[in-house]
Amino acid sequence: MLSGGLDSATVLAIASSEGFQCYALSCLYGQKHRVELEAAKRVAVSLGVVEHRCVNIDLAQFGGSALTDSAVEVPKDSSELSDSGCIPATYVPARNTIFLSYALAWAEVLGVFDIFIGVNSVDYSGYPDCRGEFIKAFEALANVGTAAAVEGRGRYRIRTPLIDLTKTQIILRGTELGVDYSLTHSCYDPDEGGRSCGRCDSCRLRLKGFEEAGLCDPIEYVK
Amino acid sequence: MLSGGLDSATVLAIASSEGFQCYALSCLYGQKHRVELEAAKRVAVSLGVVEHRCVNIDLAQFGGSALTDSAVEVPKDSSELSDSGCIPATYVPARNTIFLSYALAWAEVLGVFDIFIGVNSVDYSGYPDCRGEFIKAFEALANVGTAAAVEGRGRYRIRTPLIDLTKTQIILRGTELGVDYSLTHSCYDPDEGGRSCGRCDSCRLRLKGFEEAGLCDPIEYVK
Repeated sequence: MLSGGLDSATVLAIASSEGFQCYALSCLYGQKHRVELEAAKRVAVSLGVVEHRCVNIDLAQFGGSALTDSAVEVPKDSSELSDSGCIPATYVPARNTIFLSYALAWAEVLGVFDIFIGVNSVDYSGYPDCRGEFIKAFEALANVGTAAAVEGRGRYRIRTPLIDLTKTQIILRGTELGVDYSLTHSCYDPDEGGRSCGRCDSCRLRLKGFEEAGLCDPIEYVK
Repeated sequence: MLSGGLDSATVLAIASSEGFQCYALSCLYGQKHRVELEAAKRVAVSLGVVEHRCVNIDLAQFGGSALTDSAVEVPKDSSELSDSGCIPATYVPARNTIFLSYALAWAEVLGVFDIFIGVNSVDYSGYPDCRGEFIKAFEALANVGTAAAVEGRGRYRIRTPLIDLTKTQIILRGTELGVDYSLTHSCYDPDEGGRSCGRCDSCRLRLKGFEEAGLCDPIEYVK
């Protein structure tokens, strides 16, 4: 799964470094920050994937999230980045379930069994579908719900190499692997020119990560 | 989930008879028999749903199934309808996982927790994602992967009232509840006028069901 963000770019580099031939899947799901798809394309090319596909997911029609619903604003300058005990307005109902379902469909057609996704549960935004428990449940589902698994051709593994890393550790690992973070996009609410706001949770987690890594974030911010 | 087929029409009637206010979700997923969507609309109207939505699912781009891939023919006059131990060519990789993921997204936005789906494992086609084991795994996933469940607003239940019924029992139950089966469509490979072939697995299971129920199938067949 390749969103075009910092995490998934790092995951792709990790998978490649482990010797996998990678197929990248991105999702257009009515997100306000669809500019991330351009980032996904750049990252896929720079890391040499076998194929990059984008699926169009009709999620905006359901609404229910600040990321897809024009009537709900993306929160800025939240007092808490995480550990607040609340699931933020940027949570998109069942998003990772849908994303992984598409990945599973493509994996089954390709005949591959390793699905990489850049969820992490340390410097994360409190989304329930970024936790190890969710990933384990999806893996169990994949192994009873597909012909490939039931017929014994293999067992699906949902791989989450970032799950226990902080944003800083992710950035250091990616830097080590040569990820060009100038190609990535993280902001939930970029301006019309695609510049990052610097104030949404995603920007703030990213900026904090670079700062603590002692590195300079190479992308452009509005302020 | 309302496909427009005999099973999901019966499920909708059962849910209504239990007092649920129903929201129907249909999926356009590149199936050759997209005429079933017209049937879904008719059934939704006849059974009085609160709302009927259709999501466009980009599954044909992956191929891998006789139902979505123009290069693969829908099998006709198979020697075995089920119990052959093989998963047939009409299996669509991860289809029900994707369908249920969308249903989950909509359910979470609506704030409802009961998702009805017409899978059944008796007179079925050997699909792994129509078995009780798969449904249980999806239910577990829904209850760890959504804000609504994690925040304790409810527990998702994937309801499968047909799971242990034969096609004949399904038809008798639906008839009892007043389902108008002339509105439904089951054929995987209808002709240009939307008439059913009578020879694909889906038609044959349906015809056998009506015959054993001692009822006449009210839809039109090519032969």
